[in-house]
Amino acid sequence: MRTSFKLWGYEEIRSPTIEFLDVLSTGVGSEFTDSMFKFQDRDGKIIALRAEMTAPVARIVTTKLTSALRPLRLFYLCNVFRYDLAHFEQLREFHQAGIELIGQNTPDSDGEGIALLHTSLKTLGLKDVRIDLGHAGLLKDLLQATGLSLDERKFIQKLLSTRNIGQMKRFMNEFGVSSQIYDLFIQLSSCKNLKDLSLIETSITSIESVKEHLLDLNDVLSQYNLEKTVFFDFSLTRNIDYYTGIVFEASIPYMGVPLGGGGRYDTLIERFGGTNDAATGFAIGVEKCLLALSIQKFRLPNHITSKILISASSRKMAMSAVNLCRNANIPCLFTLDIKKYNPENYMNRGIDTVIFVESSIERPVAIYDVKADSVEYLTIDTFIQSLEGAR
Amino acid sequence: MRTSFKLWGYEEIRSPTIEFLDVLSTGVGSEFTDSMFKFQDRDGKIIALRAEMTAPVARIVTTKLTSALRPLRLFYLCNVFRYDLAHFEQLREFHQAGIELIGQNTPDSDGEGIALLHTSLKTLGLKDVRIDLGHAGLLKDLLQATGLSLDERKFIQKLLSTRNIGQMKRFMNEFGVSSQIYDLFIQLSSCKNLKDLSLIETSITSIESVKEHLLDLNDVLSQYNLEKTVFFDFSLTRNIDYYTGIVFEASIPYMGVPLGGGGRYDTLIERFGGTNDAATGFAIGVEKCLLALSIQKFRLPNHITSKILISASSRKMAMSAVNLCRNANIPCLFTLDIKKYNPENYMNRGIDTVIFVESSIERPVAIYDVKADSVEYLTIDTFIQSLEGAR
Repeated sequence: MRTSFKLWGYEEIRSPTIEFLDVLSTGVGSEFTDSMFKFQDRDGKIIALRAEMTAPVARIVTTKLTSALRPLRLFYLCNVFRYDLAHFEQLREFHQAGIELIGQNTPDSDGEGIALLHTSLKTLGLKDVRIDLGHAGLLKDLLQATGLSLDERKFIQKLLSTRNIGQMKRFMNEFGVSSQIYDLFIQLSSCKNLKDLSLIETSITSIESVKEHLLDLNDVLSQYNLEKTVFFDFSLTRNIDYYTGIVFEASIPYMGVPLGGGGRYDTLIERFGGTNDAATGFAIGVEKCLLALSIQKFRLPNHITSKILISASSRKMAMSAVNLCRNANIPCLFTLDIKKYNPENYMNRGIDTVIFVESSIERPVAIYDVKADSVEYLTIDTFIQSLEGAR
Repeated sequence: MRTSFKLWGYEEIRSPTIEFLDVLSTGVGSEFTDSMFKFQDRDGKIIALRAEMTAPVARIVTTKLTSALRPLRLFYLCNVFRYDLAHFEQLREFHQAGIELIGQNTPDSDGEGIALLHTSLKTLGLKDVRIDLGHAGLLKDLLQATGLSLDERKFIQKLLSTRNIGQMKRFMNEFGVSSQIYDLFIQLSSCKNLKDLSLIETSITSIESVKEHLLDLNDVLSQYNLEKTVFFDFSLTRNIDYYTGIVFEASIPYMGVPLGGGGRYDTLIERFGGTNDAATGFAIGVEKCLLALSIQKFRLPNHITSKILISASSRKMAMSAVNLCRNANIPCLFTLDIKKYNPENYMNRGIDTVIFVESSIERPVAIYDVKADSVEYLTIDTFIQSLEGAR
């Protein structure tokens, strides 16, 4: 993921693990804040462990990067902490990889975020990645246009997000929502692709302008060849409050939760005292991706570095042989206990070759190939050259 | 440092940031435990942020790696947390790189730890690294042999560690320490090299056996060509309780604190309920190394990835050019705002080349070299080939 992000011109940013709760809770909403690990500093101030990275990045942007040219392209790979075990992997510490594109609110920057999310996951080796896309502003505006109370709006939103369209219709009729608004809800709920939005007609200016933005975004996405990968989902919301524009989530088949997601947050940075910095970003759950790869039967590489064991009769000879290997950048270690070798024991420790040095490091020595369970006689130099040739 | 550790056959280990205080405080002593970030879990248990990595690694070794073959060679690169700002960099969160060599208590394993500490620092680019070496067991045994009370011993140790030899002599005379023990203190305090220990004669078996171990260690170190780099310092102690054998610290001239250090801890793993697992290890302060490099006027590489900006008149053309570059693994981004270019603005953002695409990506385009402030006309393909050739 670091490679993908760098290839798209993003720069790595780091933040402290512990910050004041006031900073970490800015804009995220009370439910999310409840899930944070909080404690009291010795002077009584409440501090917490970071639970996501957008607020910390926004804080850095408004304090350290005020004079840096926009747009800023930043990425992070780090651990975050949440108290509740409600989420998928039941981990209280987990890892996120994400980006923030700050200082632009064009369809191009929204498209870049979505396309980078998609390509990062594909580059990991994941197949059939799909993106679902909603719009936090559109849903909010339309709910407001109903003229209903806040509680009633929340109830409709819940029916919508659980795709309970029948009950939603009944409720709206009962409460006398105008037929114009009612029709818009039904039409938007049935749109499955961004281009379908072109069929929607409305006199509500804010909704018309979101529609135009999303159709422009569709043009951008088609240039990334993503028009068949991105699906419109009017009901999509995310559990963080700061989103103002598009929201999106990436998922694969046969996995009940999204791998990652994000959206546009145009007012968050201002809340940290920054200037008007429109922004879009996403975060990917690293452990979720590992699970997704295993669901797709992707064989994760064996992470034990393969290495050479030098088994020698004297320390001096062992060290000479070890130095030859290390100088050629070949990981190795040595032992002076020449025991009977057992291929399984070696392989568990990542040792794929054992070199037995008995009298001289210049003359041919027994070189034991652990996997093949076979021995050949070569000088160490020749052996190193053969390894270098094979790279 | 990761490269160095791997080259010596060590494998990376990770641990959770948060653990039960009971685990993190095992063996480290009360002063060290005081410096930890502690808080209460929702069920009332005391949890803390890790303040060093040896205890967490010992916990993993006794729970997850009981059946793994010894010796285990493990390394870590991670952040640790301490409340007090008393230490050098005044950071409450900082980074440590370290190793643990578990399941051996030979002079070879002590030598390997010291040599790997030295080579890791040298490989970073540091010059004139020296290692000071003491022995926690030797000092403890000799203090015990004085027959003095615990408080009196602590007082002697303090005089020793502040090199207040004059006052130490006076105090020992006053309290009637035997001349044999007294002489040993004076002799050991004046040893500056391990080989000088050969001149020391004693009838105290435990001290004689430490002496033999240290002379063997000197042989090992001389095979690493470290006999002129490692200095004996009888008074050296470290502020963690679990050390039982050698203790050592690495430092450079003109810096008041060691860059890192470690030692042998043969009883810690047993305290976690493991079998008798003798071990040696060290930790390096990453931020201290950065400071040391700057003290030595080492020019740290510029970490902003150099990248290409595509400036195009249409999105379609921009994206085609971007894809050409990214497919060749060249980090790049694009803009549709063709503004007057200013070399300084580009350089601040790591942009070393701007490609202006106006009508076609196949025909020669203006390629602006930011550093040289010059333009040449090439096809993008030719330009990419020239970059690949230069690598």
